[in-house]
Order: sequence, then structure tokens, then C-alpha cells
Amino acid sequence: MWQQLEIHLTAKNRGFHLITDELIKQISTINTIHCGILHLFIKHSSASLTINENADPTVRTDMEKHFNVIAPERAPYYQHTYEGDDDMPAHIKSSLLGASLSIPITQGQLNLGIWQGIYLGEHRDHGGSRTIIATIHGE
Amino acid sequence: MWQQLEIHLTAKNRGFHLITDELIKQISTINTIHCGILHLFIKHSSASLTINENADPTVRTDMEKHFNVIAPERAPYYQHTYEGDDDMPAHIKSSLLGASLSIPITQGQLNLGIWQGIYLGEHRDHGGSRTIIATIHGE
Amino acid sequence: MWQQLEIHLTAKNRGFHLITDELIKQISTINTIHCGILHLFIKHSSASLTINENADPTVRTDMEKHFNVIAPERAPYYQHTYEGDDDMPAHIKSSLLGASLSIPITQGQLNLGIWQGIYLGEHRDHGGSRTIIATIHGE
Repeated sequence: MWQQLEIHLTAKNRGFHLITDELIKQISTINTIHCGILHLFIKHSSASLTINENADPTVRTDMEKHFNVIAPERAPYYQHTYEGDDDMPAHIKSSLLGASLSIPITQGQLNLGIWQGIYLGEHRDHGGSRTIIATIHGE
Repeated sequence: MWQQLEIHLTAKNRGFHLITDELIKQISTINTIHCGILHLFIKHSSASLTINENADPTVRTDMEKHFNVIAPERAPYYQHTYEGDDDMPAHIKSSLLGASLSIPITQGQLNLGIWQGIYLGEHRDHGGSRTIIATIHGE
Repeated sequence: MWQQLEIHLTAKNRGFHLITDELIKQISTINTIHCGILHLFIKHSSASLTINENADPTVRTDMEKHFNVIAPERAPYYQHTYEGDDDMPAHIKSSLLGASLSIPITQGQLNLGIWQGIYLGEHRDHGGSRTIIATIHGE
């Protein structure tokens, strides 16, 4: 069984956001898969998808603070500056974190660890709605 | 052909560990796949899976030293501190390196480069046993 | 439908290179897939694959400059030094960026965002030709 869906996330502020529920409620066929994989792909090069802790929100704010250190604005050697100070760091963060996730589906559910959730990394100041292609495949 | 296995790794010290053999000997069905993909997913947000050199062990110790620079303990802006100094850096490393791997299977074997192996990134001081979901899919 | 191809890229200078066209023209079966996934795996631990902006080439040169800051040469604590100053940073970049990509295929085409392309991260000074395993799977 193969299925593909285009999902449009609501616009989010810059930072890391737990989007497990927003995604899953739009991918109802996960329930029908006994064994398979959910693949998520974000169609943007200034945002990212990653897995991290789904509990304490300070993990997300600390992630944002520290990725701003790893990929700072206004590094003196940046030449790609005409799209704004937040743009080149957003490209770097996108490649550090990645544009896609693959998550096992087991007996009708995502087989995440109890403390794991799906994060959107919104790396632009005003990124707007982001589009994700969800590919569900299994039996 | 789809198969899923839950694999429990032995507890490891903090650092990077070559786990190719520990994993493969528990996934015997790779031998039966002519063309496919092995997907590995670690069910934790303070450990990671990555591919790197399988030969000189100083690659692993240098990786540990340098990831401790990229994601240091006790950054003054961390708010998520109540799980220990090693916890917030572990979350950052987990997202930088990733929770999953997809590796091609070709004629009954993982199609890794001759110098490539599978690493566990154990980012906690006392992480204990880690659980990996292996999904084997192919024909 | 499963297919696997071994693709040999032309040798590239150190840095980030847009390789979408060089790859796609060698994977003609994408056209025949209505819904599926293209998986790319680079068989080296000193190069990487990532998705990023396909337009302004200064994104690629800024990425190279900044990854040289994130993973510098000659860090005083590196012990893995006998393969050259560029080798240990190449291993670190390879794990930060990743050895594989999974991209959805939709109606015979890669379902990339309009600004997205596939990058080779060549992290050695003289890396030579790099080998990628492309696995195409879908219906």
C-alpha cells in the first residue's frame, strides 16, 4: 500500500515546534498499516524536520537559542545576504537538521519512543505556511 | 517483503560506538533480500545513529570531543537543566546527527562503502540500553 | 517496483555542489513511478548528501565557509590526523549532513520544492569520484 498526501502546516513563529498531532490527524491511513514507514519531506530549504523530546517546552527554546549560536546571523563571510539576516542561517540549519524523516509504523501507529515527537524547525522570521509531502507505505 | 524487529543494544559509555556487527547479527533476513532498504530508528531523543569510518577508533573519540564543542554542557542560556548537565547537549546532538538511517540492501548484504560502519551516538553519561526498530523491506 | 543503480559522480572540488541534473539524467525510471521514493546513499564517510537552495551559488560557498567554522581543521584535540588536515573535519561534516537522502516521487517526478536541489558535500581536498547507490521504489 502506497499513499501520498500534501500537508500544509499553519504558519509558525521562528523556532522549534512540536507538530506530531497537527501531522497525524491529517494522515489517517497510518491506522491501516500493520508494518511500514511514514516518510515526511518538507519542500523548503529554510525550514527542517527533526525528532526530539515531546515533553518539556524548554528543550525547544534551548534548541532555538543554541542553533542560533551554531548558525549565527551576520557572519562576516556570508555573501548570500540579500534575502535578510535570517536567510543564510536558515539554509545552514536546514542542512544540519534535514528536510525529511522516516518513522516506522507498527500495528497502526507511529513507533516513536515515549518521549519522542516530530519537530518543525522554522528558521525564517516570517516563513509562512510550510508544505510537507507525507508518503505512507506498508502492508 | 516487510519485516520489523525491535533490537535492544547493550548499554554503552558516552561517545560514539561502532555497532554494525551487533546490529547485523540480529537482522538475519538481510540475506534474503535481493534489492531493498534497511531502515533503523532509535527510540530515544538523547542518542543518535550515524554512518562514519569503521576503521581507526580515533575517528570516534575525535567525534566525541568535537561534538562536545559544538553542543557544550552548561551553556549559560540553557533552561532545560534539571535532567543533568549532559541532557540538553544530548538533545542537540540527537537532532544534529539524527534518529534514523536508511541503508541500501543489495544481493543479500548492506551496500555500505568499504570504510563505512553504523555508529551509535550515546550522548548521555548513563544512557543504559537503547532500543532500535529495524524495518527490512525489499524483494 | 524496485530498482537499484550505482552512480559514479565526476570528481569535484572541495565544497558544496548542486548535482540534481547529474543524478536525475542517470535515473530514468523515475518517470515510470506514480507514487514512490528515491533513496540516495553515498558510499563514503568524508562526503555527504543534503538538500538546499538550487538558485544562488553563494548559498553553496557560504555553506562551505561556515561548515569550515563548525568543523575546523587542526583542532588541537584531534588525534586522527595522519590522513591530512582535511580528513577529520570531513568525517564530522559527513555525520552532521548525512550520507543519504529520501525524496518523494510523485507522478513521474521528484517532488522537490521549487527552490530545492540535491547537494553533494565534497569535504576532502581531493576526494575524486564519489559513488552513490540510487534505490527507486514505488508503483
